[in-house]
Amino acid sequence: MTGSLVVAGLGPGSDTLITPEVVQSLANATDVLGYAPYVARITPRPGLKLHQSDNREEIARARAGLQIAASGGRAVIVSSGDPGVFAMAAAVFEAVEAVPEWQRLDIRVLPGVTAMLAAAARIGAPLGHDFCAINLSDNLKPWALIEKRLRLAAEAGFAIALYNPRSASRPAGFARALEILREAGAASRLVVFARAVTTPHERIEVHTLQDARADLADMRTIVIVCNAETRRVGRWLYAPRQVS
Amino acid sequence: MTGSLVVAGLGPGSDTLITPEVVQSLANATDVLGYAPYVARITPRPGLKLHQSDNREEIARARAGLQIAASGGRAVIVSSGDPGVFAMAAAVFEAVEAVPEWQRLDIRVLPGVTAMLAAAARIGAPLGHDFCAINLSDNLKPWALIEKRLRLAAEAGFAIALYNPRSASRPAGFARALEILREAGAASRLVVFARAVTTPHERIEVHTLQDARADLADMRTIVIVCNAETRRVGRWLYAPRQVS
Repeated sequence: MTGSLVVAGLGPGSDTLITPEVVQSLANATDVLGYAPYVARITPRPGLKLHQSDNREEIARARAGLQIAASGGRAVIVSSGDPGVFAMAAAVFEAVEAVPEWQRLDIRVLPGVTAMLAAAARIGAPLGHDFCAINLSDNLKPWALIEKRLRLAAEAGFAIALYNPRSASRPAGFARALEILREAGAASRLVVFARAVTTPHERIEVHTLQDARADLADMRTIVIVCNAETRRVGRWLYAPRQVS
Repeated sequence: MTGSLVVAGLGPGSDTLITPEVVQSLANATDVLGYAPYVARITPRPGLKLHQSDNREEIARARAGLQIAASGGRAVIVSSGDPGVFAMAAAVFEAVEAVPEWQRLDIRVLPGVTAMLAAAARIGAPLGHDFCAINLSDNLKPWALIEKRLRLAAEAGFAIALYNPRSASRPAGFARALEILREAGAASRLVVFARAVTTPHERIEVHTLQDARADLADMRTIVIVCNAETRRVGRWLYAPRQVS
């Protein structure tokens, strides 16, 4: 019996954004593992074991999935969005590195629609020009590095997608991030706050950076700081293709 | 009769990466418009008109789609990857801006799996930490701006996804980009060349930036310059979650 581990992205919320290859891997799975709200999106069926775990237990979850694969099971670890963007894929390879025999396992990463792409699509095309993505959580990197990247990203003129802008345990970081971007000369730029995008709870607001308040974001919000050239057309925003 | 325009992403190549909402929009379409190789991916059927155009005719294609919608048709403009990332969505809103009555049309952008996410998934998790995406085509922006962004992205420690690295009309830019990144101190970084990802012609190679040659890329290649911390584990690469 040959096992496998798939690391699959469920997209930002709507099932209409789950790719057919992810649907197929779930149909073949013996075990689905993930953060509880993501596992809750999987339809139970006989022969499928669902393993829900806490948000912070990424390495333990990765190891559990690899152990199931090593024992002949077909495990799927589910992530929101794309598993390679601030999600489970990196944790899986970190776990593989620690146990060399796991390198021989059948492991596949299945990409998905990451939150910034879905948010951008709902409001127009704010990522139509060069852009960057920064995870504002400082659980695993120093805050000073985040500040440095924000300053350089503003100087480069990138549109800036901010993941995990704000959580109960890190209430102050996002306000500071907005301040740094204002100091970096980006105060007149437009900022998109897209919460729970493509779900029934979706809420999208646009402000200038000057007027943006930190409490407009929570952990279900993706924030896009548009580039300086971004234009409003009716209810839409877009980054022009031509920049001089 | 109410028309509509959908701007849809077909993903990087494999039909198993097309989202159900895009499949649905194509099933409802009266007209599909796009660059010829993308339109060639659509299955013909009675009642569906296929409009193929050249790569450079983006604004003309956007206007044609908007005109079909204004006349009551259900037009779908197809892009490779995600339509919001260096693709058709920005061109559509640029066309809308020029003709104010088009703002009242039913326009939707449907996101897709953009090439860098699919390439990253095939090789592991090189975009698992902060990253940026830069379009190396200087058709619509000055080359000096591309150079500035490359230098700042290297200084920020981003993984760097390079779209449209090389074309017959711009043979020298990509070699220069590699040189700039080496000068910026990134010579020991790993570089992923992912060509025609998720198609039968897929070819993925990894080199150090020091050893990378410009002729490893063409217009069907997405290049990912990994961040400095990226590790190899067997056939995989990943960006560690923890950075000090």
